[in-house]
Amino acid sequence: MTALDQTLPHFHAIIPAGGVGSRLWPLSRAEAPKFLHDLTGSGHTLLRDTWNRLQPLTGDDAIMVVTGRAHRVAVLEQLPELAEANVVLESEPKDSSAAIGLAAAILHRRDPDVVVGSFAADHVISDAARFRAVVAEAVEVARAGYITTIGIAPTEAAVGFGYIKTGETLVVDGAPTAHLVDRFVEKPDLATATGYVESGDYFWNAGMFIARADVLLAQLAETRPGLHHGLMRIAEAWDTDERDDVVDATWPLLEKIAIDYSVAEPAADKGRLAVVRGDFPWDDVGDFSSLAKLLSGGRVGDLAILGEGARVLADSSSGVVVSQSQRLISLIGVSDIVVVDTPDALLVTTRENAQRVKAVVDAIKQAGRNDLL
Amino acid sequence: MTALDQTLPHFHAIIPAGGVGSRLWPLSRAEAPKFLHDLTGSGHTLLRDTWNRLQPLTGDDAIMVVTGRAHRVAVLEQLPELAEANVVLESEPKDSSAAIGLAAAILHRRDPDVVVGSFAADHVISDAARFRAVVAEAVEVARAGYITTIGIAPTEAAVGFGYIKTGETLVVDGAPTAHLVDRFVEKPDLATATGYVESGDYFWNAGMFIARADVLLAQLAETRPGLHHGLMRIAEAWDTDERDDVVDATWPLLEKIAIDYSVAEPAADKGRLAVVRGDFPWDDVGDFSSLAKLLSGGRVGDLAILGEGARVLADSSSGVVVSQSQRLISLIGVSDIVVVDTPDALLVTTRENAQRVKAVVDAIKQAGRNDLL
Repeated sequence: MTALDQTLPHFHAIIPAGGVGSRLWPLSRAEAPKFLHDLTGSGHTLLRDTWNRLQPLTGDDAIMVVTGRAHRVAVLEQLPELAEANVVLESEPKDSSAAIGLAAAILHRRDPDVVVGSFAADHVISDAARFRAVVAEAVEVARAGYITTIGIAPTEAAVGFGYIKTGETLVVDGAPTAHLVDRFVEKPDLATATGYVESGDYFWNAGMFIARADVLLAQLAETRPGLHHGLMRIAEAWDTDERDDVVDATWPLLEKIAIDYSVAEPAADKGRLAVVRGDFPWDDVGDFSSLAKLLSGGRVGDLAILGEGARVLADSSSGVVVSQSQRLISLIGVSDIVVVDTPDALLVTTRENAQRVKAVVDAIKQAGRNDLL
Repeated sequence: MTALDQTLPHFHAIIPAGGVGSRLWPLSRAEAPKFLHDLTGSGHTLLRDTWNRLQPLTGDDAIMVVTGRAHRVAVLEQLPELAEANVVLESEPKDSSAAIGLAAAILHRRDPDVVVGSFAADHVISDAARFRAVVAEAVEVARAGYITTIGIAPTEAAVGFGYIKTGETLVVDGAPTAHLVDRFVEKPDLATATGYVESGDYFWNAGMFIARADVLLAQLAETRPGLHHGLMRIAEAWDTDERDDVVDATWPLLEKIAIDYSVAEPAADKGRLAVVRGDFPWDDVGDFSSLAKLLSGGRVGDLAILGEGARVLADSSSGVVVSQSQRLISLIGVSDIVVVDTPDALLVTTRENAQRVKAVVDAIKQAGRNDLL
């Protein structure tokens, strides 16, 4: 273990484990969302990989998981080390401001000096040591009072991610890459993305936020006072007998809003948002096309294959096959294809059309076939 | 019923029901070969459609089916009218000369004046009345002593069929389109096929042969005396107690050869082969690409769908989907695709690559996975 892998005092990770991952249907389902799948062929679910990546910085006792009630058992099965006190169950999804805000508020009551870092349960990061070094740097910037994000150094002109434009340099001890964030930009077109990458002033927005809990909550109080108030009420009751009553009365009323809009963008406007450079391979595995890129093992020629015991016969084909059945899958002369074979649903599309999978999910929803979602 | 739909005296149809249809894997299997499938969405198997098409010319008692022992039950289930005397079971496949030759020899012993007509169990013909009129014409030519084939008037420059070049006009009563056959040609390239179709001198070879049984057998005796001898021995014993013994002793020794080579081509060379014009829609459904063309019902946009209770969601896709499972099949943005979904095997290819399906079957054979064939 290197020096960087020692636990960081007063640092507590938050893993929001929500979101089905509609663009990964029919692999991802309501019952088995993206974070409960092994999407890289590592042998671990993305959630377990996230835990393993963070644990050297936190130990077993300083990682909190926020997830839906329906996923409690599956999450604990993946993370047997996870303490009951670090499980926050949502009765219904309320987006990231409520999930991360509640975790921050609970942790702040337990430790007023806590620095929290929020890391999605369903992203793929392949250099864990480098990741931890960058988180350690972000924690230094957070201790200096900034809400801090990790901007991913872009390796190509991706159009599937949002971007972060860096502003002036910040001088913080132990944080050589720290800058203020100038602004966030939504997914660009290819020409714009190319300009961003060439300029060197832009990072990919990976949605990771590290901040002192008090700073985070103060920003939320300023921007979304109603939501902040509700979260503080729940946090006060959390470690008491009144938890369930207060949650039942309050949670359903909370505003649904992404933390990007409630905290990050307003903080950037006020010069309170910092960014450190994340120079590790990262992907949010937003669709089956990214999956094709990420899978390195289990290839047949130019075809990436995911699935235990997958049986694939491929003749001049490329793309990705996900096999969740024991059926023989034969491909002949199909390029950049996406085949996802599950016991009750089959998807055939191309990498180019991978983003359109969500439309199928919407069609199934409209048809009332929730058993397939 | 028109005059043409009256039964033809001394005419006996032979339906060779063999051949798995490898290019239609994984729909066609050893256990459920092509002729036992409904490939047009008609609600009938191809075998049943073949029977229905011929029956008005023959009645129930003048159609003989030659098939493998393994398919006896399935064939009788499809054709409950089929008399035991009209079932010829092969202990092992011996190609079309043996199958048709044996049927002809048995029928010749029962009726020396019989005219036999051989019609594959797994072709698709959509104008049955026109088909019967053409068969009636061919029977007239056969009665005049010619081995007669039905040449299909080509509707496009197909490269997937063999062609028949017509020779001089034949004058036969009741057979206005009769010509001698000049020669047979193998599947041509596109330029050659285009020339053939433009010339008007070529037909598609649909492998239908109509002849007096004595003429057919005499031709076989001339070209393949050993095979002829074996078939005559079996035919002599067929309607006696010795059938099984003689079959067991003789059948395994018979030469495997297509009737095109043992009878049709040699007869053409000697000016004994005639052709009448088949101006009805015909297809041998050689692969999934032809299937896509043939399926008229059950379409979702540009997608042809085959399979009872098929559930298909298609977004800007074209091609053909065959569904033999109850799974939901979703296609997004795939053109000229072929998806064949069965309980234990899935095939994804394109119409352009449909002929290459046989290579997959060969690979499975080599892998010793006969359960999938």
